[in-house]
Amino acid sequence: MASTAGGHARICLGCWDQMKMPIPIRGPLAIPFRAFGITRSKMNPNICTICERSFRRIKGKQHITATATILFADIRGYTHLSDRIDPAVLGEIVSTFQDQCAQSIWAHDGIVNKQMGDGLMAIFNFPIRIERHAAAAIGAAIDIQRRCAEVLERLGSSSGELPDKAIGVGVGIHSGEVEIGEFSSFRSDFTAIGGTVNLTSRLESQAAAGEILVSAEVAAAAPDLVGDAVSRSFTLKGIDQPVSAYALRTHA
Amino acid sequence: MASTAGGHARICLGCWDQMKMPIPIRGPLAIPFRAFGITRSKMNPNICTICERSFRRIKGKQHITATATILFADIRGYTHLSDRIDPAVLGEIVSTFQDQCAQSIWAHDGIVNKQMGDGLMAIFNFPIRIERHAAAAIGAAIDIQRRCAEVLERLGSSSGELPDKAIGVGVGIHSGEVEIGEFSSFRSDFTAIGGTVNLTSRLESQAAAGEILVSAEVAAAAPDLVGDAVSRSFTLKGIDQPVSAYALRTHA
Repeated sequence: MASTAGGHARICLGCWDQMKMPIPIRGPLAIPFRAFGITRSKMNPNICTICERSFRRIKGKQHITATATILFADIRGYTHLSDRIDPAVLGEIVSTFQDQCAQSIWAHDGIVNKQMGDGLMAIFNFPIRIERHAAAAIGAAIDIQRRCAEVLERLGSSSGELPDKAIGVGVGIHSGEVEIGEFSSFRSDFTAIGGTVNLTSRLESQAAAGEILVSAEVAAAAPDLVGDAVSRSFTLKGIDQPVSAYALRTHA
Repeated sequence: MASTAGGHARICLGCWDQMKMPIPIRGPLAIPFRAFGITRSKMNPNICTICERSFRRIKGKQHITATATILFADIRGYTHLSDRIDPAVLGEIVSTFQDQCAQSIWAHDGIVNKQMGDGLMAIFNFPIRIERHAAAAIGAAIDIQRRCAEVLERLGSSSGELPDKAIGVGVGIHSGEVEIGEFSSFRSDFTAIGGTVNLTSRLESQAAAGEILVSAEVAAAAPDLVGDAVSRSFTLKGIDQPVSAYALRTHA
């Protein structure tokens, strides 16, 4: 494991963990690579664009099955908000949210795989290997809640246009098998799909502002971080059986 | 308007429409540009990576307000499906869906702005200008339904694992003002946000398999394509007032 836990790696941690290949991404050795378009990835600045775009070449197939932890986060009440406030303020809220989430995810060696308006999906344990990936995702989620609470509340009150309640973030986390690879012939950045990803997304949609909902699988893998949180049962769209999850509250 | 309606443009249609600047993307003149990393965009092969990644440089600001038509599409019952079938088959279904949708959107000069598992978001009227952008989006949606019905039904029956009902696609379309730009400091590809985008997403979530739900604004802009479809009223999450929309059915 090459992880520097969010520090500045000199070689791509993904290429190292996946192929034991040292690709320079910082310092003078990185310059010739940059000339060939091999630079730091937008998904995580400690991995390179080979990881991001050359999945098929690295893995020798279009997709692989892997165990990972998936994290979804979004701004609660965003749809309601988006019709009421100045688009410039909305843009600032979305940018701030995305930046704070990315910093939190990178600090725990996860990657920001997808951004979609006020939402995002992060992957932990690929391409950077993380022994305790469920714990890493919870750590990132706690950071997301702390950072966003500070910054979004300030933004909300300074804009003067927002409803009296602060803007809050909901997070959902689940671990399991996912299918990782390229799932269209015209885009070359990898993503993760499958039941685990969908369950995480559905779980996140149930999280209240300030809440982190983690599945029973995540709680079992990181009992020290879940503490005495009480399990609740959720009925999720498209999923037959009720799903039990633990709500970690990070601020009131 | 430089549009070739989905044909192979020799210059970037986006750079032409936005800046009247001819950037070669095909043929021998494109070779020196390629050496500087200026190639065809993954969002639409008739625009270039300047359009995709240099929004701030082109527009001189981080985001702009523009009138556009937004299209969302996804596979109905995908969450239910994703827990039941082989991940390799799921991967093939997602790839096929994404590819067929992209071909349909490009044929009408739209761009595939976001892909997220079994879903996508397309923008019409930016960066390629389209006089009748609502009509272009409806045209793309009709193509999506026709192409996906053929291909996904065949995939479903050949896999032998799927429930007896065919896999279907739901589409939602809405036009209005959107905020287009870069909404995070670490990614440089543009996107659209705002109330119009959220309403489209919510509308799409109500579309049945095989259905195209278009808002009243879209119907008014392209009455010839809506024909005698009957308006229905929808209560959408996060939106106070009921929204009326027209359901275009393309196949049984």
